[in-house]
Amino acid sequence: MDISSVKHYVEKAKSASTLLATVSTEAKNEALRIAGQLILARVDELMSANEKDVAASKSQVTASVLDRLKLSERRIRSMVDGLDSVISLPDPIGDIVEGWVRPNGLRVSKVRVPLGVIGIIYENRPNVTSDAAALCVKAGNAVVLRGSASAYNSNLVIATALKDGLAEVGLPENAVILLPHTDHEAVKELVGLNGLLDCVIPRGGPGLLQVIVENARVPVVIDGDGNCHVYIDESADIEMAISIVMNAKVQRPSVCNAMETLLVHKMIAKQVLPVLGDRLREANVELVGDEKTRALLPEVEVATEEDYATEFLDLKLAIKVVDTIEDAISHVRKFSTGHSEAIVTSTLGNADRWVNEIDAAAVLVNASTRFIDGGELGLGAEIGISTQKLHARGPMGLKELTCAKFVVRGEGQIRK
Amino acid sequence: MDISSVKHYVEKAKSASTLLATVSTEAKNEALRIAGQLILARVDELMSANEKDVAASKSQVTASVLDRLKLSERRIRSMVDGLDSVISLPDPIGDIVEGWVRPNGLRVSKVRVPLGVIGIIYENRPNVTSDAAALCVKAGNAVVLRGSASAYNSNLVIATALKDGLAEVGLPENAVILLPHTDHEAVKELVGLNGLLDCVIPRGGPGLLQVIVENARVPVVIDGDGNCHVYIDESADIEMAISIVMNAKVQRPSVCNAMETLLVHKMIAKQVLPVLGDRLREANVELVGDEKTRALLPEVEVATEEDYATEFLDLKLAIKVVDTIEDAISHVRKFSTGHSEAIVTSTLGNADRWVNEIDAAAVLVNASTRFIDGGELGLGAEIGISTQKLHARGPMGLKELTCAKFVVRGEGQIRK
Repeated sequence: MDISSVKHYVEKAKSASTLLATVSTEAKNEALRIAGQLILARVDELMSANEKDVAASKSQVTASVLDRLKLSERRIRSMVDGLDSVISLPDPIGDIVEGWVRPNGLRVSKVRVPLGVIGIIYENRPNVTSDAAALCVKAGNAVVLRGSASAYNSNLVIATALKDGLAEVGLPENAVILLPHTDHEAVKELVGLNGLLDCVIPRGGPGLLQVIVENARVPVVIDGDGNCHVYIDESADIEMAISIVMNAKVQRPSVCNAMETLLVHKMIAKQVLPVLGDRLREANVELVGDEKTRALLPEVEVATEEDYATEFLDLKLAIKVVDTIEDAISHVRKFSTGHSEAIVTSTLGNADRWVNEIDAAAVLVNASTRFIDGGELGLGAEIGISTQKLHARGPMGLKELTCAKFVVRGEGQIRK
Repeated sequence: MDISSVKHYVEKAKSASTLLATVSTEAKNEALRIAGQLILARVDELMSANEKDVAASKSQVTASVLDRLKLSERRIRSMVDGLDSVISLPDPIGDIVEGWVRPNGLRVSKVRVPLGVIGIIYENRPNVTSDAAALCVKAGNAVVLRGSASAYNSNLVIATALKDGLAEVGLPENAVILLPHTDHEAVKELVGLNGLLDCVIPRGGPGLLQVIVENARVPVVIDGDGNCHVYIDESADIEMAISIVMNAKVQRPSVCNAMETLLVHKMIAKQVLPVLGDRLREANVELVGDEKTRALLPEVEVATEEDYATEFLDLKLAIKVVDTIEDAISHVRKFSTGHSEAIVTSTLGNADRWVNEIDAAAVLVNASTRFIDGGELGLGAEIGISTQKLHARGPMGLKELTCAKFVVRGEGQIRK
């Protein structure tokens, strides 16, 4: 395949984006509604495409990767539910973000407009195809999807349904493009298209992110790691602390907002760690800890620096007993990836310190880190969780797929 | 000089940024006030440092570059006025951007916080040192300044005053760092410090921007070119059109929001171009145009495609007569750098089309492009004008030097 044609595809998306930027919410919603119907009507085609993908990958990947790749009728139904939930979200385009009148009579407003062309680079899960495309289109953007080779057949059926939905209501089908280029070089070419792509959002592991950071010439929003901490302060309610820790670690350990390290104040460690040790082991959580932890939980293995730096994404937890809240904050500063960091405390001053001094996309007081998610926070569907500070930080919903332009209206004003 | 120490300097800024993030507005303002006093107290030192810089550059640069480098007592006074105006701006840190309560009782808010460490890469003008540093510090950020070699001695006196101002009120002096590394390699190293620098804002010509785009591993906000257009619609008020064109081209041709190409509807060209031709030539503006323009203004040279693509930043203007507003919009789409684009019209529908269909940081109706500037729009001092869409678009004031973090408060909520 001619590699130069990545650019050709993105140029087509660029033309489509100009048209899509000014269409009505009704038209965009209708296109997504039809796409959902088409996915359901083509369920057999999609299932057999997916079987082809799964068969090709079977011998090469882990069971969990295979599970993410695999579609079922239930998963396809939930994909269409995802489209419906994007349809139900308010359209942010055209919102006036702020506005004022200058002393010379100029009327200034900042109006929300689409970004333009958004590139989404992702791995495995075919439902990202419909979720990401729907959010981008709803916010008036064209989207260039670059899924993994392993899911290409599945992605193609889904992307085609979205394109057909757009075409059905007279919108440009090139507003959704699935790149046929599934090699690594294509990623590099894509993120080098400065001036054509307005934003790239990579969704994947550290390997993918590294390739993006090294090669990007276009603006990028990083959906990075979540090495999340929970700190049990001296004054924490014990029951609450146990409940939050269990939820943050066990409810869904494979996701970025799960807890990876537990910090415990030394004055409460004796009361809380033995109970937690039992509960976590009951839940099959492997524990590693520092010497003070091991004094209370002797069967715990020694935690290395690397353990504290690792996002396990699994039933494994690193524990550390700290002398002060300052030590807890220092530990988080050293090891945090800037995702979600929680304190359990009943001391107002310590809650305030945590909120003010921890530098992360989200800080929580007396709540589980698992809430840091677009749906849970009330933002609607999310396209990812940004761990960078520029443009978007934390869960990214529709608004984060837009920008604002200045609209200035006058009656002939000139600058003195 | 050991090139590896760029990182060392940025690490010092990073430590300082943690402290600066949570200090009071009063302390930040007082540090800037003292810095202004110190600049005035050290005016002789600054003038002689500047004379050294000017003497070293004299033989190598153009008169206009030399002029940007040169300080006078008046320019120093206006530098200190700039500090005063930053002091008078409201501090955005701590502002609650939005907030709501979830059905489960979680209280969610988005709170404005500093970005962290900002790198500013700039050329020549020593006043950028104080302007940029003051804005960054006011927004709670540490700043790493990388000015040009030609202005190093001047920049050092100014940066030292800012550091001394910070130290005087007990704030970390490393919140302002002027890199002693003035070679090209240092720029590359600086923009590669992913994880240390939260944002880089380059202020300079296309050559500098190219180096940044090629080498950046950190988030960048591009302060890009302004190939700005004014379109005189068929229904324009003739007097207004002439006044806006003259202002947009002549009032200060060397800046990014000056007009570079004039588009004129064919039905009004005969009434407006002969008058404008005279007025522009009186103002020493060199004109180039298409055939239809030259039919009305025979002494105008032929405009090439390159003329339409060029930001002259000078007393030169490209003119084109268009058949329709669609043609005007197409021309702008082709040549615009996404900065500031103006229409002069009395037709509501055409004003709306312009506002909706032109993709630029700022669109104007019946006003001069020269208003697209932080001060003129009422944002206060600006750190630059972004021509990208991610994070900031258009004039960037204090708010654009911040981000928001989610603060989530609960009473023990866990996710079901």
